[in-house]
Amino acid sequence: MNKLNLTHHISQKFNEELENIRNHVLTMGGLVEQQISDALRALTESDSELGRSIEQQDYKVNQMEVAIDEECSRILARRQPAASDLRLILAIIKTITDLERIGDEAEKIGRFAARLAEMERAGDRYVALQHLGGHAQGMVHDALDAFARMDAEAAVHVAREDARVDDEYEALTRQSITFMMEDPRTIRQVLDVMWSARALERIGDHAKNICEYVVYLVQGKDVRHAGFEVMEREVHERP
Amino acid sequence: MNKLNLTHHISQKFNEELENIRNHVLTMGGLVEQQISDALRALTESDSELGRSIEQQDYKVNQMEVAIDEECSRILARRQPAASDLRLILAIIKTITDLERIGDEAEKIGRFAARLAEMERAGDRYVALQHLGGHAQGMVHDALDAFARMDAEAAVHVAREDARVDDEYEALTRQSITFMMEDPRTIRQVLDVMWSARALERIGDHAKNICEYVVYLVQGKDVRHAGFEVMEREVHERP
Repeated sequence: MNKLNLTHHISQKFNEELENIRNHVLTMGGLVEQQISDALRALTESDSELGRSIEQQDYKVNQMEVAIDEECSRILARRQPAASDLRLILAIIKTITDLERIGDEAEKIGRFAARLAEMERAGDRYVALQHLGGHAQGMVHDALDAFARMDAEAAVHVAREDARVDDEYEALTRQSITFMMEDPRTIRQVLDVMWSARALERIGDHAKNICEYVVYLVQGKDVRHAGFEVMEREVHERP
Repeated sequence: MNKLNLTHHISQKFNEELENIRNHVLTMGGLVEQQISDALRALTESDSELGRSIEQQDYKVNQMEVAIDEECSRILARRQPAASDLRLILAIIKTITDLERIGDEAEKIGRFAARLAEMERAGDRYVALQHLGGHAQGMVHDALDAFARMDAEAAVHVAREDARVDDEYEALTRQSITFMMEDPRTIRQVLDVMWSARALERIGDHAKNICEYVVYLVQGKDVRHAGFEVMEREVHERP
């Protein structure tokens, strides 16, 4: 088993606090997933209003980040958690930073989508972008799912997807450069597509970070910068 | 006074632990500053070997991030710090994440510099890039200085610089688009200049984040997402 069951504490209040804070992270994650989904829809449907509206939603995500951070500080100061409880709080502190930055990237995509909606459409490039977008969005969803279930094996599986997102991003970039060279009049437009692709690639990176925190939380071992072999060994060798 | 003097604890050992961990953050900061400086030199001197060498240095920064994170966990578990000690540990946990990502951006610039060194040189674009680079590098240096002195007023001052870095980045991007449209043969080269500029702009963002943690550490108040007015009010109204 590579899942973590939260220790039950004698203090019922403490159990509730930990449960609440996990739920708040998932609520924040839901908001961020909605931002990505709106950003991708703004791109697909050339909806400049929807694209710009994402920015206005961002304050909610920011507020949640600050509120959850404060909850974590309070729990650290009052409950003085140890072992897996401490790891949970530390993993949450890091996770919400990445969630907030995913929101920032979605906001950027929204702005590019709004600008692209006002230009003439070049259909084929959007297909690659949508594909990349679906992939990055899936990673965020699955990373949050691994966090919710505290499932290290699922987390490693999701983290591995990042290499595919990176490959798709590279292919899209190469293709975009060719388009620009063939028809320099499209430069501005293609750049906005490239910037959007870049933001999606970064969203994949942040989802991967979240997965690494889940492995740390469950296994008690920091696997960042360690490569997948180490990550998988950690997940499989431990009880 | 907007500086924080660390409380002296009855435990001499605890004083030492906090002092050590701060020094480790500053050592990590020094490594990252060196990475930025190497990346900028690789650009200026068209030194592809130097550009590629930054990647090989990155493992040191990564190792330091993991080691400092572990020190923080240990202190949280054993010392159960409260008030400003707890804020120091939390600020450090966040600061090292940003430092590590600054290192990643420097590594990227190194790769672009190596690629650019193999192309024909377009002198004038590099001047703007060097200017932006000097500015971003200065922000990182000053942010670490504000952290070392725990000086919230200096931190707000540095954070304000980010808007100037953003403006320079925007100007460079606009200029680059014009260059590409005028001479599509330069597209690949100009893109590498633009990606480098983008990385420098992100380095400025990370330096700003570090400044916000310094304000939080000194003032006990989370000023992220709050804007400069709130930040400055916090710094000036408190004792």
